Amino acid sequence: MKTLPPQYLEDLGVQIFTRQGLKREKAEFLAHTLVEANLTGHDSHGVTYYSEYSNRIKKGHIDVKADPIAVKETSTSALVDGRWAPGQITAMHVMDLAVKKAKDSTVSAVGAYNCNHIGRVGYYTNWAAERGIIAMMFVNVGNPEATVFNGTTRVFGTNPISVAVPTGKASPFLVDYATSIVAAGKVSVVRAKGEKMPFHWARDKDDKPTDDPEAYRAGGWLMPFGEYKGYGLQFVSELLGAVLTGSRIGLEGGTKPPSPNGILAVALNPEAFVGLETFKEKTDELITRVKAVKPQEGKRVQTPGEPEWEVKFQRFKEGIPLPDETWGNIVSLAKGLGIEVEE
Amino acid sequence: MKTLPPQYLEDLGVQIFTRQGLKREKAEFLAHTLVEANLTGHDSHGVTYYSEYSNRIKKGHIDVKADPIAVKETSTSALVDGRWAPGQITAMHVMDLAVKKAKDSTVSAVGAYNCNHIGRVGYYTNWAAERGIIAMMFVNVGNPEATVFNGTTRVFGTNPISVAVPTGKASPFLVDYATSIVAAGKVSVVRAKGEKMPFHWARDKDDKPTDDPEAYRAGGWLMPFGEYKGYGLQFVSELLGAVLTGSRIGLEGGTKPPSPNGILAVALNPEAFVGLETFKEKTDELITRVKAVKPQEGKRVQTPGEPEWEVKFQRFKEGIPLPDETWGNIVSLAKGLGIEVEE
Repeated sequence: MKTLPPQYLEDLGVQIFTRQGLKREKAEFLAHTLVEANLTGHDSHGVTYYSEYSNRIKKGHIDVKADPIAVKETSTSALVDGRWAPGQITAMHVMDLAVKKAKDSTVSAVGAYNCNHIGRVGYYTNWAAERGIIAMMFVNVGNPEATVFNGTTRVFGTNPISVAVPTGKASPFLVDYATSIVAAGKVSVVRAKGEKMPFHWARDKDDKPTDDPEAYRAGGWLMPFGEYKGYGLQFVSELLGAVLTGSRIGLEGGTKPPSPNGILAVALNPEAFVGLETFKEKTDELITRVKAVKPQEGKRVQTPGEPEWEVKFQRFKEGIPLPDETWGNIVSLAKGLGIEVEE
Repeated sequence: MKTLPPQYLEDLGVQIFTRQGLKREKAEFLAHTLVEANLTGHDSHGVTYYSEYSNRIKKGHIDVKADPIAVKETSTSALVDGRWAPGQITAMHVMDLAVKKAKDSTVSAVGAYNCNHIGRVGYYTNWAAERGIIAMMFVNVGNPEATVFNGTTRVFGTNPISVAVPTGKASPFLVDYATSIVAAGKVSVVRAKGEKMPFHWARDKDDKPTDDPEAYRAGGWLMPFGEYKGYGLQFVSELLGAVLTGSRIGLEGGTKPPSPNGILAVALNPEAFVGLETFKEKTDELITRVKAVKPQEGKRVQTPGEPEWEVKFQRFKEGIPLPDETWGNIVSLAKGLGIEVEE
């Protein structure tokens, strides 16, 4: 395990992506969002993608020269062609448009297709909440990885959803998760560490519960969370993320590009309802009250977004720990691009 | 058990509510939505409320003379004061406004406060979907019934969410559920039948898993569905349903009125994206593909909304079965109001 300062990792990412032809401003944003994922404890969505995205640039899946563009637009909505730019650039463009439109017109929805992997979805919804806007995001991954309720075989991607709302003094409120029981990246993290999974995460190709990440990879599948209720949300992410935007649905198959995320952002301006100040005040109050709920023995009641907030505080001070394999890959990548790096 | 034709139950409901001062048109709608809940298999939200709503009218919680009114409005949003009209009247007013605004302005959000119990949430989202609009609804119940992840004591209501999208020839797509593991009404149904609950539904006042509906009622609580993920949605329904609209949050307590639902409807017009016809066609295709997924042994893969659709088809032909207690209560109520009723 190697522990590195976030700023160092971010600067390194900027060099890695600019050397591959991405403009500085975009490289800064891309590296920033990936480091932010590690900072908030979501290592599955972090700098491990420096290597993977570089592969995708090489193979032509990610177009470093492309800019996303709105192909259909009203004062309250837009449909964006991501043109295979880095997914983070397109997702940020989508959320920025959604927030502007919600500020001007109260409510908005913006979707995108031809979009690569967008990383940690909570980044964008949280960004909107910090600007006084309630935001939701529905994402279809574009590859089948999880089965459906009562099903066998891979059907949907891990299809994440996220909701964030503005808070005042309280920690940010952020719901952000895969609608499969875990994100596929979490299986990769377990695998990279040579560990086993809990048995309820996945089934092997014969529908037997398995703790072996390899058995999942060899034709197995992840389970949906929360039985038929989580299954409903998987389906909603596929419909709103992909069908509504014209993106690739998971069942269509195909691995080129590997993660053609279809995304939909919905943004609401609290001024249309009780008003932003009252909303923030009452949300803070509710968060405080829920934190004070008596926990089960030996457990802790946290509010959605609080775990990320705490890890961020800690890692900001202590640095980001990376498994040797992940750091080794980044070092090789950097060296190959002629970048000096402390091993 | 007594089995009755849906039309008979609906006509009886119209008489029950008009005799108590509700205008005919409103009484028809109220009875229609309650019978529709039974038709779709959700007996917990059905005609059992003929008696309960009549009590609430008597106590002044439901104001039969009131009309909901928008107190704040833009072309894309509205905040509605329900003025304690029957909740179904307010919820329908909310969804009707949301659909009109989404037709005119692509995207909309409409919320309401001072709203009584609105019944089965899926009624309204499905209604929107039948009119070519994608609809979501977030509802806070206003009474604490369920605990939070890792928590003890009652914190949130059963806080339902619902999402419906337009389909073509396929069965309706409808996600509609409590964010607690079950709706409180399902516990009442078990209790009315003198049966036991599965142990994972609820805890008693000492945080012990219990199968006894009485132990839940005596200071116990329902569990959230899907661990921390379902908990995130419970919280979202409380924030969007109640905090955003200025409705009563569950933790504030109080039993007058008994179920002051806070509601938020979000409506999206597919024409702003791939277009309604393409959306319906691709949604049908996805539904067909998911139905064809190989099920686990002895199980069946259904799409969200399909179980309700099947029960409705069956009950429409065969009638609605009501437990003797439920039917007995309706008969006494009707007789007390001077209505002729076949016992």
